[in-house]
Amino acid sequence: MSLGVCYFPEHWPSERWATDVEQMAEAGLEYVRMAEFSWARVEPERGEFDFAWLDEAVELVGDHGMDAVLCTPTATPPKWLVDEHPDIRQADADGTPREWGSRRFTCFNSPTYREETERIVREMTARYADDPHVVGWQADNEYGCHRTVRCYCEDCAAAFREWLESTYGDVETLNEAWGNTFWSQQYPDFESVDPPGPTPAEHHPSRLLDYYRFANDSVVEYNRLHADLIREANDDWFVTHNFMGDFPTLDAYSLADDLDFLGWDSYPTGFVQDRRPGAPTTDELRAGDPDEIGMNHDVYRGAKRAPFWVLEQQPGDVNWPPHVPQPGEGAMRLWAHHAVAHGADAVLYFRWRRCREGQEQYHAGLRKQDGSPDRGYHDAAATAPELFDLAPVDAPVALLHDYESLWATETQPHSPDWHYWSHLRAYYDALRARGVQVDVVPPSTGLDGYAAAVAPTLYLAGEGLADHLTAFVENGGHLLLGARTGEKDPYNQLHETLAPGPLADLAGARVARHESLPEQFDTAVDYRGGAYEFRTWAGWLDPTTAETRGRYRSGEAADEPAVVHDGAGDGTVTTVGCWPGAGLADALVEDLLAAAGVAHTAPFPDGVRAAERDGYTWVTNFTSEPRSLAVPADAAFVVGDDTVGAYDVAVVESPLDAVGLEQY
Amino acid sequence: MSLGVCYFPEHWPSERWATDVEQMAEAGLEYVRMAEFSWARVEPERGEFDFAWLDEAVELVGDHGMDAVLCTPTATPPKWLVDEHPDIRQADADGTPREWGSRRFTCFNSPTYREETERIVREMTARYADDPHVVGWQADNEYGCHRTVRCYCEDCAAAFREWLESTYGDVETLNEAWGNTFWSQQYPDFESVDPPGPTPAEHHPSRLLDYYRFANDSVVEYNRLHADLIREANDDWFVTHNFMGDFPTLDAYSLADDLDFLGWDSYPTGFVQDRRPGAPTTDELRAGDPDEIGMNHDVYRGAKRAPFWVLEQQPGDVNWPPHVPQPGEGAMRLWAHHAVAHGADAVLYFRWRRCREGQEQYHAGLRKQDGSPDRGYHDAAATAPELFDLAPVDAPVALLHDYESLWATETQPHSPDWHYWSHLRAYYDALRARGVQVDVVPPSTGLDGYAAAVAPTLYLAGEGLADHLTAFVENGGHLLLGARTGEKDPYNQLHETLAPGPLADLAGARVARHESLPEQFDTAVDYRGGAYEFRTWAGWLDPTTAETRGRYRSGEAADEPAVVHDGAGDGTVTTVGCWPGAGLADALVEDLLAAAGVAHTAPFPDGVRAAERDGYTWVTNFTSEPRSLAVPADAAFVVGDDTVGAYDVAVVESPLDAVGLEQY
Amino acid sequence: MSLGVCYFPEHWPSERWATDVEQMAEAGLEYVRMAEFSWARVEPERGEFDFAWLDEAVELVGDHGMDAVLCTPTATPPKWLVDEHPDIRQADADGTPREWGSRRFTCFNSPTYREETERIVREMTARYADDPHVVGWQADNEYGCHRTVRCYCEDCAAAFREWLESTYGDVETLNEAWGNTFWSQQYPDFESVDPPGPTPAEHHPSRLLDYYRFANDSVVEYNRLHADLIREANDDWFVTHNFMGDFPTLDAYSLADDLDFLGWDSYPTGFVQDRRPGAPTTDELRAGDPDEIGMNHDVYRGAKRAPFWVLEQQPGDVNWPPHVPQPGEGAMRLWAHHAVAHGADAVLYFRWRRCREGQEQYHAGLRKQDGSPDRGYHDAAATAPELFDLAPVDAPVALLHDYESLWATETQPHSPDWHYWSHLRAYYDALRARGVQVDVVPPSTGLDGYAAAVAPTLYLAGEGLADHLTAFVENGGHLLLGARTGEKDPYNQLHETLAPGPLADLAGARVARHESLPEQFDTAVDYRGGAYEFRTWAGWLDPTTAETRGRYRSGEAADEPAVVHDGAGDGTVTTVGCWPGAGLADALVEDLLAAAGVAHTAPFPDGVRAAERDGYTWVTNFTSEPRSLAVPADAAFVVGDDTVGAYDVAVVESPLDAVGLEQY
Ligand SMILES: [Mg+2]
Ligand SMILES: [Mg+2]
Ligand SMILES: [Mg+2]
Ligand SMILES: [Zn+2]
Ligand SMILES: [Zn+2]
Ligand SMILES: [Zn+2]
Repeated sequence: MSLGVCYFPEHWPSERWATDVEQMAEAGLEYVRMAEFSWARVEPERGEFDFAWLDEAVELVGDHGMDAVLCTPTATPPKWLVDEHPDIRQADADGTPREWGSRRFTCFNSPTYREETERIVREMTARYADDPHVVGWQADNEYGCHRTVRCYCEDCAAAFREWLESTYGDVETLNEAWGNTFWSQQYPDFESVDPPGPTPAEHHPSRLLDYYRFANDSVVEYNRLHADLIREANDDWFVTHNFMGDFPTLDAYSLADDLDFLGWDSYPTGFVQDRRPGAPTTDELRAGDPDEIGMNHDVYRGAKRAPFWVLEQQPGDVNWPPHVPQPGEGAMRLWAHHAVAHGADAVLYFRWRRCREGQEQYHAGLRKQDGSPDRGYHDAAATAPELFDLAPVDAPVALLHDYESLWATETQPHSPDWHYWSHLRAYYDALRARGVQVDVVPPSTGLDGYAAAVAPTLYLAGEGLADHLTAFVENGGHLLLGARTGEKDPYNQLHETLAPGPLADLAGARVARHESLPEQFDTAVDYRGGAYEFRTWAGWLDPTTAETRGRYRSGEAADEPAVVHDGAGDGTVTTVGCWPGAGLADALVEDLLAAAGVAHTAPFPDGVRAAERDGYTWVTNFTSEPRSLAVPADAAFVVGDDTVGAYDVAVVESPLDAVGLEQY
Repeated sequence: MSLGVCYFPEHWPSERWATDVEQMAEAGLEYVRMAEFSWARVEPERGEFDFAWLDEAVELVGDHGMDAVLCTPTATPPKWLVDEHPDIRQADADGTPREWGSRRFTCFNSPTYREETERIVREMTARYADDPHVVGWQADNEYGCHRTVRCYCEDCAAAFREWLESTYGDVETLNEAWGNTFWSQQYPDFESVDPPGPTPAEHHPSRLLDYYRFANDSVVEYNRLHADLIREANDDWFVTHNFMGDFPTLDAYSLADDLDFLGWDSYPTGFVQDRRPGAPTTDELRAGDPDEIGMNHDVYRGAKRAPFWVLEQQPGDVNWPPHVPQPGEGAMRLWAHHAVAHGADAVLYFRWRRCREGQEQYHAGLRKQDGSPDRGYHDAAATAPELFDLAPVDAPVALLHDYESLWATETQPHSPDWHYWSHLRAYYDALRARGVQVDVVPPSTGLDGYAAAVAPTLYLAGEGLADHLTAFVENGGHLLLGARTGEKDPYNQLHETLAPGPLADLAGARVARHESLPEQFDTAVDYRGGAYEFRTWAGWLDPTTAETRGRYRSGEAADEPAVVHDGAGDGTVTTVGCWPGAGLADALVEDLLAAAGVAHTAPFPDGVRAAERDGYTWVTNFTSEPRSLAVPADAAFVVGDDTVGAYDVAVVESPLDAVGLEQY
Repeated sequence: MSLGVCYFPEHWPSERWATDVEQMAEAGLEYVRMAEFSWARVEPERGEFDFAWLDEAVELVGDHGMDAVLCTPTATPPKWLVDEHPDIRQADADGTPREWGSRRFTCFNSPTYREETERIVREMTARYADDPHVVGWQADNEYGCHRTVRCYCEDCAAAFREWLESTYGDVETLNEAWGNTFWSQQYPDFESVDPPGPTPAEHHPSRLLDYYRFANDSVVEYNRLHADLIREANDDWFVTHNFMGDFPTLDAYSLADDLDFLGWDSYPTGFVQDRRPGAPTTDELRAGDPDEIGMNHDVYRGAKRAPFWVLEQQPGDVNWPPHVPQPGEGAMRLWAHHAVAHGADAVLYFRWRRCREGQEQYHAGLRKQDGSPDRGYHDAAATAPELFDLAPVDAPVALLHDYESLWATETQPHSPDWHYWSHLRAYYDALRARGVQVDVVPPSTGLDGYAAAVAPTLYLAGEGLADHLTAFVENGGHLLLGARTGEKDPYNQLHETLAPGPLADLAGARVARHESLPEQFDTAVDYRGGAYEFRTWAGWLDPTTAETRGRYRSGEAADEPAVVHDGAGDGTVTTVGCWPGAGLADALVEDLLAAAGVAHTAPFPDGVRAAERDGYTWVTNFTSEPRSLAVPADAAFVVGDDTVGAYDVAVVESPLDAVGLEQY
């Protein structure tokens, strides 16, 4: 388990580099990521390459016993290239080109840009193919950031038509699959299909879903181009990419096969402000939300069921969230330990030093722009000696997450309060409050190793999924199906039968009807003798073989079944019609874990989380309130002790279910 | 009085049609509306027509003793047509074309699209000209929905210039009428006039008003094209159109001459969420607002002072409002009775069956997508046998509503809280709370049959209007003039004299000045010895011959006249300077009804409404609270009884003013 | 000290003009501003000029003993001109042209429009070069209103490239100055630089800042064209321009050299609603905020350290704010006196008469549209005899305001609550609450005459500024430096050293780190033994030679220095790390005034302000609550008396610091 840092030597006088690199090594860092946005520095004019600076930087890194990770610089092509080939720019839905002057504005489908990408990647990888200090590559940077997965340019229009033809074969099949009789939307041929432009009313949801799939596939192809070229140059190199948090438009799982491991960029105090409904607490503004960070760790770990890297870890105050309080004292250390508990192999702080230039001047580094250490440097230096080698995380529970279901519910959310990620979080948070490690995996994942699986919203469901989940349950798995599961077929049409469509036999129930409810309604469910709140969505269940375990308390849904339970083979399946509040989610999860025999703790309070990896249990405190731990008398603390202060962490050699809070 | 349904056989296998139609007949439905968006089904390639499916559906309908209403399918031209003629698309003000892929994106002024319209309408009407089961046609669908009345394309620019030339004759007259000396806006010739594009500051209000008029006239012409072609094929057919609720950009009255009766599409639980300021109550989210629905009934009835149809009636949960709670139990029955009480001859539920495809998958039908009955089906079947034949509504009061005044106040609202429809509603709701039937009519309507008239905002006022209203009063009519009446001349200029301009002699008063007041001010008027709240607008009245009956209580307006009263001939006129709250509106209306000798009830509470038609009185309860009725001992209930439950209705053979609530 | 009015004779029949002008003279008005938007009236067709109407109007004005001020009519070119030369239109960043139909849509850099401007200005100035009644000119109208300083058209692109080349000489210098290594933003040559268009992520802040500077310089050049032509025609004429309130995009100081005095347009009850964070009070909705108006007076006075004119003074209710309550009784008199107290030489009401036509129908005049007097007329007539001649204001304190710092902080505000003007106001309001006259001046101003200077945010700081301020302090000046001062160099890069960069020696401190804090945090500073609130920004100070006088109380910043104090030569410098609340600002200002020996009062309450000019002290009451004054027994009131009613004013012959409120 290692720490590292992202470094941009090109931003500083070369005289300074030796000092910088020496200070990195002194802090115990082991990886240095470089060259990320360096195209114009590497190739200032077409065909004129300058690698001397990067050679020197790599050499310095190696000389100090560290490894270099390089990046393909394709997120920021030079101005001369865009002026030569303006066709490489993406376009908005109304045709407006996305201009040069920030980053990630080039089209994934542009033949020209793919050629240029190949040219620069070949050049760079050839340069370092034999360099012993370079251990691997990050392809590009944050694919799709700033809403750029989906492009509406002419190249994309042509590629979309090809994609459709290769997917459907003939246009009648497309018309049938999408359901184009509605509003006279039948296409005469593939040539007549366009990307979805500005229309007076909403678009056909099947057309949108396939455009989202196509756009995603374009990124997969573009990434594969990088991966192939990198491996062609040196087969020992690893290839990774830095994904983003709670990211809605790119299916991280779909790139997993082309990467050796996945990486992501973790900015805890920003995420609580800009990608989650609801106002953050002051504690969250200081340290973030451990379950928001944790679920992203578990997505990128789950993608390959293998360790991941944090390729960018928030180092202090950053530039892009609305508000930027200083992180809590020690938070930069806390985040690194928390990542390791969730299965990270390496955590690289972004960036080494605050940059004097350009868009990110208000983004801290481990060191300030004058070279002096900032708070992150002290935290990193304190953390490095605390890390030690660990086996991968072994999670007993799978959370089934499906990007296509996310995209499809976005086309028809049916409530302004519908938010796919937040609905997943209802179950995820309940599992994590009880200390359970969770693999967040695509629904097609083999489920053999898991005792239980939670499927909050498998909105798109075909026969294959039904068979897959039925086999899991019949073999003894315990499954929880949540709201809006099975509402649609894989083409974003309603099933001929009521939801959950092909999953109805497994569930032993159908959804008789549904409603979305704004906040002014009282919404509660009776379950296990208590009243529990729910929100936003009420599916009225109609059990066939299932037993009713929960009913709605009021409104038009009063007395309708809300939670039903059935068995199949050696396993069980629980179906939930509503979006549970925290209390109901905990009750449902507790019952599921008990049925599946999964070890867990009593619920930890918000902001405090436990997790076990390789026989050690981490307790991470993301709050400003110190906590006292109760652990077995003979348990050894390898980090901290039984008092976990504000923004502090303890690591104890003990199984998870022996750990709790002393008083809470 | 009949029920019906909207049916799309093309969305379902033909094997199912017989079952569907049989179930319609079983429920007591009498009309089936079809073919609404069927162009691509009817003409899959240019000149290749396929009517077999529709022939069969019409035949089935007729075989089961029902009548078919067909629709011209011009709201959704096929993709092949748009690809052939991209010039038929509308354009936004900045020139962006409105793309194919939803509906209603074609330009009303496109010569190409008019030709294509003529072609398809001739083809379809010829096909069914001799079919005994087809009784009439709906032209197109919801003209102008999704903000499409106003288009800014080149065809519209040319047509606008012609419209102006034919309206004004020479450009000097235009410059004078609009007042183009302001900011050097004189035009050298008609050719130099453009549709209003994107400008740094606001547009000339007279230019905007005429563009809105022109756009409206374009729809009138386009509708007339349909009506003429339909009648040309079969003169016995009726022609109607399905208008929308609280719709701001199309003057429904202006199409009335070309239609046999008007229809509209009523979605009560959606309207309370998306076209009205203020948050809905939970009761409104379950059943809608009876006065919002009622005023629309009365607009479309008032357009011809004749019965209307509800061409689309909400059948359950629908797809487009922000939130979609299930309607209250029985609401689908309640809405049908309420429509009949307001003068509907027929109510057609939209749609028969939830569609599996496309944009409206979350729109319920009377039956679910699997064919099983939904709540609406039970409500419809319960309602059908309760309906019986009735004479048209005979309303004693006219509410004068002027779309051009709506458009003109939108150009210069002078307050973010100004909302033309809501201001109308202040008076309408007060009249309806006292059970009075109200014709909502254009100001030019002959007023002979009315005892009283309320003119909330006749903003644009010329000499003709003054003569018309003066004659009404002198002949014994009782008139109430509301805020902002007569502020402008018909070209959206201020009059040379103070408001109400040419109506000042009739009012016996002028508006000395006005102010718009945000919520933080205390705003009240002294009237009849009490203090009544008002909102948003204060016109300070200056009586000449009128008597002051109300004065402002506070602020800069303190002691200025707010309500004045005058007489002329046998009638009276009351002028109100402010936007009354509910209490003041009730007091003003009570005084008006008393003066005019109009029968009325004590005020019913919000959500409960009475209405008389043909000697019967309906009490409709749009709330979740049951109500006990007080009626004459010998009054016979033909529907329900003296306990009107939640979302329930009673119909009693009794005059209106003998009906009340037992306890309230 | 004089009153005047803005008059548009072209809006009225010529028969009326004599009456209008006579009534102006009767009210005691001395200036009549005309011809402001008259181009199409003056030149209805190319080359066909009609000046007869304006000749007559000027003559009438002169005959009644008043002076005419004329305007170049270039804010509203005629339609025929735009149709001839559509290239004169500005463009939005996405290329959409700004269309004719309102005003100020023409490009300042268009060679065509500059030619046309020269043509019309030559024609008009030649016409009146020898007219004894015309005393001066206003160039154009409100440069940049409706967000039009910044244009993105092709002419601007070309001009920007030239501007850059002339600023930087070679592109390497540009790349270095901006810091273009970041994200590969190096330019190969000047030709490759574009105006900042629509990009997925944010723009380079240095590129933005220079585009804002360039756009500002374009207005300076365009104004100079007017000024030169006017003076060429008649060197005795004055040249001025009517600037706007709290205006963010145009540096008023940069036009000062080309104007004889600055004018501005004051609309107090609108400003409190549309250009200031926070909801206005009811008093502010009636009379405005004296410090918002006052700071603008002091900016336009400060630009030349000389008297200014109010070229447009709100006359009553106006058309453009969201809400339009009637101004408080007497407010139009109050505003005129308040302007005089702040150094105005003349106050011209806008407009004479409410216009029947076009966009401003809801803008009152001194008289109504029917010619009768409105409230403003009575106020103006009451004010005129109360005015008398006065020496210019002699302000003891300078507030250093830098438009480039405003622009630069806008590129990286780092908090949604950052608002440059509001931060200035924190200090300005505190100074004005104690009656102190304040020159709001650019930082380069010679500071010799000032006892103290307050620099709230000199964000961009170079060595020259450091030398300038150090000299001021060493010569005995007392300086206060506020939050975010010296964060950047003049090219919008961070300094190599920590803030305040080159000002650190003077401050005796550096900013160790900073944070922006949303409202949910408790934020307070200990100062002078008390706890004082601050908001939004916390710079953690690190004193070198300075003494710590205030520390943060809580959060991560607890105990870090927030206010430090140092001396240099005969002066002192106080550095403040946070945005002070009203209490802290008063404490800081009180200490500064004491150190500098500046006369001041006890704090006046919000809405009540005192100011001294030429030995007289004005007390202006912008509230609805009457106030009793305490003045020296022998002090003579020249306006009012010791009871200042609602929206009233008193002027007493007394020094400022002898005046206070009797009870408060
Ligand atoms: Mg500890
Ligand atoms: Mg009953
Ligand atoms: Mg007085
Ligand atoms: Zn593309
Ligand atoms: Zn058009
Ligand atoms: Zn331009």
